[in-house]
Amino acid sequence: MRTLIQDATVITLDEQDRLLQHADLAIDGETILPLGEIPPSFIPDTIISGQDLLAMPAFFNAHTHAAMTLERGWAEDLPFERWLNERIWVAESALEEEDVYWGAALAAAEMLRGGIVGFADHYFWMDQVARLVESSGMKANLAWCHFGLAPAQELGGKSFEDTVAFVEHWNKAAGGRILTSMGPHSPYMDSPAVLHRFAEEAQRLGVGVHLHLSESDQQMRDSLDRYGRTPVAQVASTGLFDLPLPALVAHCNVLQEDDYAILAEKGVHVAHTPKTYQKLAMHMPPILEMLRRKVHVALGTDGPASNSDLNMLEIMRLVGLYQKGLTADATALPVAQLLRLATQAPAAAIGFSQSGVLAPGRPADLILLDTTAPHWLPRHDLSAGIVYTAHPGDVAYVWCNGQLLYRQGEFLTLDYERIRFEAERRAFRMVGKSMHSMRLTPNV
Amino acid sequence: MRTLIQDATVITLDEQDRLLQHADLAIDGETILPLGEIPPSFIPDTIISGQDLLAMPAFFNAHTHAAMTLERGWAEDLPFERWLNERIWVAESALEEEDVYWGAALAAAEMLRGGIVGFADHYFWMDQVARLVESSGMKANLAWCHFGLAPAQELGGKSFEDTVAFVEHWNKAAGGRILTSMGPHSPYMDSPAVLHRFAEEAQRLGVGVHLHLSESDQQMRDSLDRYGRTPVAQVASTGLFDLPLPALVAHCNVLQEDDYAILAEKGVHVAHTPKTYQKLAMHMPPILEMLRRKVHVALGTDGPASNSDLNMLEIMRLVGLYQKGLTADATALPVAQLLRLATQAPAAAIGFSQSGVLAPGRPADLILLDTTAPHWLPRHDLSAGIVYTAHPGDVAYVWCNGQLLYRQGEFLTLDYERIRFEAERRAFRMVGKSMHSMRLTPNV
Repeated sequence: MRTLIQDATVITLDEQDRLLQHADLAIDGETILPLGEIPPSFIPDTIISGQDLLAMPAFFNAHTHAAMTLERGWAEDLPFERWLNERIWVAESALEEEDVYWGAALAAAEMLRGGIVGFADHYFWMDQVARLVESSGMKANLAWCHFGLAPAQELGGKSFEDTVAFVEHWNKAAGGRILTSMGPHSPYMDSPAVLHRFAEEAQRLGVGVHLHLSESDQQMRDSLDRYGRTPVAQVASTGLFDLPLPALVAHCNVLQEDDYAILAEKGVHVAHTPKTYQKLAMHMPPILEMLRRKVHVALGTDGPASNSDLNMLEIMRLVGLYQKGLTADATALPVAQLLRLATQAPAAAIGFSQSGVLAPGRPADLILLDTTAPHWLPRHDLSAGIVYTAHPGDVAYVWCNGQLLYRQGEFLTLDYERIRFEAERRAFRMVGKSMHSMRLTPNV
Repeated sequence: MRTLIQDATVITLDEQDRLLQHADLAIDGETILPLGEIPPSFIPDTIISGQDLLAMPAFFNAHTHAAMTLERGWAEDLPFERWLNERIWVAESALEEEDVYWGAALAAAEMLRGGIVGFADHYFWMDQVARLVESSGMKANLAWCHFGLAPAQELGGKSFEDTVAFVEHWNKAAGGRILTSMGPHSPYMDSPAVLHRFAEEAQRLGVGVHLHLSESDQQMRDSLDRYGRTPVAQVASTGLFDLPLPALVAHCNVLQEDDYAILAEKGVHVAHTPKTYQKLAMHMPPILEMLRRKVHVALGTDGPASNSDLNMLEIMRLVGLYQKGLTADATALPVAQLLRLATQAPAAAIGFSQSGVLAPGRPADLILLDTTAPHWLPRHDLSAGIVYTAHPGDVAYVWCNGQLLYRQGEFLTLDYERIRFEAERRAFRMVGKSMHSMRLTPNV
């Protein structure tokens, strides 16, 4: 497919931070052609008028549990322990293999509609998610979650060996759109021996790791008591920070002084999901200090059971607003940096480091935003508009690897009507509700 | 007009917090009929199928400067002093009377699209805003901003007497949809003598007051130095908290112990605009303590020059997330309370205390949200969906006083194409840009 977008405004996020006006942008197969230098030999199959449209790199989501869309709204206004024990685990005890497919499909629809083309997912029955990613045209880095003390232990539907087999089977599948990582849950849910085994298998297979790390004061205390080391140092000691690919760790809400140097030296990517931290009243991770010490930080949404949604526009906004308020410095995290934290940074964190910039030869992972709604006007600063006023509904076109996946309300690779029905039906079954509970007589 | 909405889900926000399913909701003229008890004699002019639609009270906005849409995006990532001196005042020095009409019209479009039907506005040339409110069908409480030491001083285009004349002329206009208030800027921009004069005039005319109050440590120190009293106590001493209607004060970022009792005893409504506080790195007002001490708190957006947008859905979300994080208590400010803070509370704060609940005989100020987009599914908790996942684009229908003002992307009382053109043209003129600056050759 050859697509020409004519006369658009283009936010490149390149090294010069160029914002082009009345620019022509061409997609040739899977990649972007030089901006403003489209060769005469390029004959497009499709031409899109770029008037009132804003082109930018697509968003990537550094950490989620996609199928947990099924539990969205099922555990509101509860303290973390009750959220987990009384709600999430109860619902997940009823989780069936195919539920994961439909939950992830609902997540895919939500992510595409909001301009997200790639995500790091960490959950169970990940072959279901891989099937969905393959057919949806998206990109993903998938890890089959493992928790338990012994490698052979049956947990989350699969043994240690099965989760490793998943990594081997699906890595670089779908023309490279699917990457896989080892998926130990965390250093508090997996023993040091298991973490060592994961490090060995990752070395053997040439992949990375994706896990949860250092989320609370309690975890910090327990790790110091049990291992004499912080959670970060504990994971470093298992070899998981010395893999062929840099590690992706979620959260790091609580760090000690030496942890920053470990994370920076090992090139670890830290996924930051602020909406979940606030909603579940967790500590806000010290990302400005991480960034100052050259730790890679990438934004993400976490799963919708905690985060409510999968909206990277809102995540950028929450990060900018929170950090400005926290530091009493309105210049903290300027707009261009927030845009990179939601595009280039998570793309790199999950293994797609060529994405996140509109430049010649880069993968055509991009979106067009419709800027006609009132909240975009006047167009004094369209970049600030993206960060501080835009909504998923403004996303008009979404391409991944040059394939158009979403166009003005229409999902081109997903059967959205079926997804709606299957996801809701299964979600209600998991929590013991029948569909008829939505169809009762008014309770007046 | 008689409108029947059939088979909808209805969030009443009544005293029993009833959520009705498959309910019929009827609007007869300006008011709502008893839910589920529509008399056979009611013959609707219009029937709307409520399938996949969620009815709720419309939002009200307790504090804004509507025409400052014209400066949206014009002052990003700047410290407060530079934001004000280098950007806002420079742009406003070029403000012309008719600009206020078109800036407010753009604000009206944005607010209606996001389900806001009423707002408290505090700015200049407020007769322009009154004209706009009159023709748009919205509700508003309008105050002509005055700052200066002497009543006769010429500032903001009008003298003290002129701003009082505006209050007298427009109060209860447009069938009661327009209310007016005295509009001294603040106790640091208006002298005690001027504030006294405003209190006298408000008594004479039977109106309230809308002003800025206690926004920073500096204001607190200056007030204590100059008057030996906190800003709250200083305003109380001028009589402005003893008017025929309760006072509306914006912000109260910094309070001292005795201030809470004054605000509670005098029935003052405090407008809370958290996005602006975070974006400009101001102190977050202690609203949980205010609520605990029975101070009326109502949510608002402030002006788009500081706040970027006019989105009460996002304001609820920011308040819930911030306060849960701040208190390390995930149960703080549950969903139902946040919904009230964005509907009933600001409606009451700006003089429309019958609005904000769907109940028989109440004004038909209501909205329908379309719940078919992925972020609404599964429908475990639609109230939580409104607070934590909804966007302005989900708002499908908006009624104010029984008049349909917005329907599925269409503004029924506003000429949106003309507003877009006029607002942007004028905004660019104010900051010295020509429209052609958006129409330049690509800067590649």
